[in-house]
Amino acid sequence: MGIVGLGLIGGSLGLDLRAQGLEVCALVHRSSTAERARERGLADRIETDPAVLRDCGLIVLALPLDRLLEPEPALLEALPATAVITDVGSVKQPVLERWRPWHPRFVASHPMAGTAQAGVEAGITGLFEGRPWVATPEASTDADALESVRQLAETVGACWLQCTASAHDQAVALISHMPVLVSAALLEAADQGSQGAAAEALVRQLASSGFADTSRIGGGNPALGTLMARCNRDAVIAALAGYRRQLDQLDQLVHDENWTGLEARLQRCQELRPAFL
Amino acid sequence: MGIVGLGLIGGSLGLDLRAQGLEVCALVHRSSTAERARERGLADRIETDPAVLRDCGLIVLALPLDRLLEPEPALLEALPATAVITDVGSVKQPVLERWRPWHPRFVASHPMAGTAQAGVEAGITGLFEGRPWVATPEASTDADALESVRQLAETVGACWLQCTASAHDQAVALISHMPVLVSAALLEAADQGSQGAAAEALVRQLASSGFADTSRIGGGNPALGTLMARCNRDAVIAALAGYRRQLDQLDQLVHDENWTGLEARLQRCQELRPAFL
Repeated sequence: MGIVGLGLIGGSLGLDLRAQGLEVCALVHRSSTAERARERGLADRIETDPAVLRDCGLIVLALPLDRLLEPEPALLEALPATAVITDVGSVKQPVLERWRPWHPRFVASHPMAGTAQAGVEAGITGLFEGRPWVATPEASTDADALESVRQLAETVGACWLQCTASAHDQAVALISHMPVLVSAALLEAADQGSQGAAAEALVRQLASSGFADTSRIGGGNPALGTLMARCNRDAVIAALAGYRRQLDQLDQLVHDENWTGLEARLQRCQELRPAFL
Repeated sequence: MGIVGLGLIGGSLGLDLRAQGLEVCALVHRSSTAERARERGLADRIETDPAVLRDCGLIVLALPLDRLLEPEPALLEALPATAVITDVGSVKQPVLERWRPWHPRFVASHPMAGTAQAGVEAGITGLFEGRPWVATPEASTDADALESVRQLAETVGACWLQCTASAHDQAVALISHMPVLVSAALLEAADQGSQGAAAEALVRQLASSGFADTSRIGGGNPALGTLMARCNRDAVIAALAGYRRQLDQLDQLVHDENWTGLEARLQRCQELRPAFL
């Protein structure tokens, strides 16, 4: 087993795989990261030299999306042609377009497990337990390679799913990438909406758990939110357009004082939500 | 002490005040509620006859906003003219407009403590501990009555705040009422945005804790959400307009592929959020 990157996903994967008795070789960028990752026991061998991957049969590229899309040439060269390669990127079409010509046994996949944490301290055991692990194979995807990735996902307790890269990217735009902007706009509106220092202080004092929840993802990692919008731009634009249509309609009901209509819409929302949990 | 209504706020207040050794008389609407409230020990005397309030010096109207704005005539008649009366409504201007002429010692207030629960089973001890309790006195408000309500709030551990009714209503529109619509539109967009049964199922399977948090208040009590929009309509409309301006700008940055601009905005959101927690 090889892992490239020992952040939240890579580090958690290393801990779970080692706990199952598998030997894990990991490549990291910086020697300070390597040192800390060794102290934490995130893998058996941890090096900054890509040669550490030489004997791996299955390699997980647990890199941030930008580094996955523009990998270092030394990494590309070090990947054995016979190894199965998969990634953990949260957008799949651009990843497939890049990696399809680069490696014959590449399988695009996305374990959907996140916490607010990042970096070498973030990895935890059991992160993938019960979480979806989505693969987006194409006609040209190596069937044995796909099966290896499925076994990996199931080894760490994830729920295996398959769909097209396009269906995946549209779905994550709707439930993850677009909501970041919806939530960020709420923080900006609460900040901009109060006139004067006293009103601003009041808004902050009165904000409760509802506001905290609704604003959580908008106040998350700015680089990550930007990367999602950039790499999944078309789907995010479509999702935002759909969102704005719904919000316009709710706004109109309030303008029209159509309280029966508004309550019926909110009733439907209350009924809808459990299906998403 | 008198309490009208033994739902989440009234019931919690009854439990806390009794724990402090105060005698609490409560008026409820239905005899089945009275019976259950007695079993739960929410007050010392619990009746469906407004006469139970006769000897109370301080009465909290812990009623839903619609019943507070259209109280039963028998309740109005039963309130002693010498008693201090306060409410717990989450909108203050319409409450003041109604109650100002009805009672000389009325103090508009709003303890900001909520859970997802409602009804006679909802009351818990310690609900108000550390939470804001906002009063919105006017020039004509009885100063001694205001002081009595302040003491009540502090008795149950709440943090006392005072502001104008208009400042209160604008603040809660920004951090509570408008966000319900923002969150509801997200549920609708996620539901409407996927084409076909397979895509719909995928969206639901992939929704994670981020979506759960952002959609929580939109999937809440529909009657309550509607009542907030109805009773605080002008402030909600203004807050929604401000929200849409922010969202339009974020949308434009994505359209323009202005990733530096988007990251700067999200960076600012990340910095902003702790002030609201």
